Amino acid sequence: MIKNVSELRQDLVSGDWVVIATARAKRPHDFLKRKHRRPVQPKKDCPFETLKGKKVLLQYQHADNFGRNNKKNENNWFVAVIPNKYPAFGEGLCMVERHETLFNWMDGVGFHEVLVYRDHSLPLALFNQKETELVLKAYQSRFLNLSEKDCVEYILIFHNDGPEAGATISHPHSQLIAVPIIPPDVARSIAGSKRYFENRQECVHCVMVNAEKSSGKRIIYENERFLSVAPFVSRTAFEIRIFPKNHQPSFEKISHEDISFAADALRISLKKLYIGLKDPCYNFFIHTAPCRGEQYQHYHWHIEILPKTAIWAGFELGTGIEIATIAPETAAEYLRGIKI
Amino acid sequence: MIKNVSELRQDLVSGDWVVIATARAKRPHDFLKRKHRRPVQPKKDCPFETLKGKKVLLQYQHADNFGRNNKKNENNWFVAVIPNKYPAFGEGLCMVERHETLFNWMDGVGFHEVLVYRDHSLPLALFNQKETELVLKAYQSRFLNLSEKDCVEYILIFHNDGPEAGATISHPHSQLIAVPIIPPDVARSIAGSKRYFENRQECVHCVMVNAEKSSGKRIIYENERFLSVAPFVSRTAFEIRIFPKNHQPSFEKISHEDISFAADALRISLKKLYIGLKDPCYNFFIHTAPCRGEQYQHYHWHIEILPKTAIWAGFELGTGIEIATIAPETAAEYLRGIKI
Repeated sequence: MIKNVSELRQDLVSGDWVVIATARAKRPHDFLKRKHRRPVQPKKDCPFETLKGKKVLLQYQHADNFGRNNKKNENNWFVAVIPNKYPAFGEGLCMVERHETLFNWMDGVGFHEVLVYRDHSLPLALFNQKETELVLKAYQSRFLNLSEKDCVEYILIFHNDGPEAGATISHPHSQLIAVPIIPPDVARSIAGSKRYFENRQECVHCVMVNAEKSSGKRIIYENERFLSVAPFVSRTAFEIRIFPKNHQPSFEKISHEDISFAADALRISLKKLYIGLKDPCYNFFIHTAPCRGEQYQHYHWHIEILPKTAIWAGFELGTGIEIATIAPETAAEYLRGIKI
Repeated sequence: MIKNVSELRQDLVSGDWVVIATARAKRPHDFLKRKHRRPVQPKKDCPFETLKGKKVLLQYQHADNFGRNNKKNENNWFVAVIPNKYPAFGEGLCMVERHETLFNWMDGVGFHEVLVYRDHSLPLALFNQKETELVLKAYQSRFLNLSEKDCVEYILIFHNDGPEAGATISHPHSQLIAVPIIPPDVARSIAGSKRYFENRQECVHCVMVNAEKSSGKRIIYENERFLSVAPFVSRTAFEIRIFPKNHQPSFEKISHEDISFAADALRISLKKLYIGLKDPCYNFFIHTAPCRGEQYQHYHWHIEILPKTAIWAGFELGTGIEIATIAPETAAEYLRGIKI
């Protein structure tokens, strides 16, 4: 009998392929050998310790301090949103297409904000339920604010944790970038979801959520309204995706009640990673419909969490195919078993 | 006057976008501050020091030693090709589509080979002309061999240099992976090239080569038959692409004479990076038509060199948009000026 060395798995939404290593698959504990722990920068050099001199776009107080010791800062803020000091998108002329010989370009018009969390050394994975809810509320509030602005076609909310995941400042923070185009990966995901809907009159993500619930083997955690899974087409070892169980195209329309279930699913997923992989560096982001979203009813928002367990090298850069060195089924079984 | 903070530039082939930082652009010397130099693993632990016990698929001798001191190894080989001990693709059942609930998958059938170079601590960037020609000849020979095999739809030749670029073994080596599908990024590039050809009866890469030759500002190096440029849509700081000036869909059909010009362009481009950025970690790969290539006459093979000057973080992972922190025009001017 021929034993395969890997599996090529096809993404149901985009049609793209990923590789799941089988012959060279690792076991969960192999991922603990890498030194993931990151140095925390000294507080005294940290630009996020105070809001003094900064333009504060939003702040949420930690009113009853949610059971933590009497930690406080200047205004008792727990989440504060400020403009990025070195924005990737900002001023410019809106949607003017320019040309240079053959090529098209436009100004990188948009917004780039930072959500700073109070505690210098408390990672998001260890936030409690109320704190995680504040994070999602801040995401929603800034999303709604920015989606009203001129030129904004898409808003990406993301979180980089640890130097291997590209965080240059160790103080916990998330970011929001509003851009004047629909980004290529998002456009492909939306096109795939639309194609599926047109062919079958069903949301592809709803169909996947139901299939995952039936099979159960890739479930990491679920509550009444959200499902956390290791996706069949994991891009990297221990990837996690969190879906609302009910069809919801747009993150920013999330109800007050759903925020609490979403926060629970996010918090527990991150904490399982934190314990299970011993505080790995990771990125997460929210994929949601474009903010002028009337025609995106077929879409289904979700959160993607990608632990930094590998380096993209020539093969990945040259093909767009990523190689996960552990099967999602094995990763899910391991994370499911991690006690919080 | 509004000063833009960045530019969104559109890829003429795929239609995708990249960001070129302007307000937060770095200068060439900023890239020298990172510690790029990689530790070289001890020779005694190196699996690539000898071919003993290995299945040798090809070896080229260093007949007259090309002006180097009398370095020799067991059989005086300079390039040797062996199967990868831990292949990402290998045995399995060819092109049998399998299903798991909703999802499609297939065995990762294919080939994964390593091209080992003789000298433990001599990076490819410092190979001389004759040595670089041997490398390209070995690429071509193995490509032709693998393209005859069952199930092989695409062959990617790539080179990872340094740990930040994903090289786990420091001894210089390249790799060849043959896969049973056309990878997603390649498929998009081919589709874009086909679309352009159908609309305008011209090869999009030929058109770009001519535009770059006329403008001159992104040229890094050229010889009679090959052009090395910093692409208008650079994915990363100091990206380099090398194109044959004449239309050629397939790398493996390169003539004996063209190999010498291609080797010259590759060698000088890599050496300029080596000197200019002080031995950065980097990846390069060859994009060429699929190996059953009759219907790909519109395509134009080329080499892409990507120095590891940044870490992909949440924004890049969530959007597919990469941010280059130096304009390709500035990078080209700097590299053009580096004396070899």
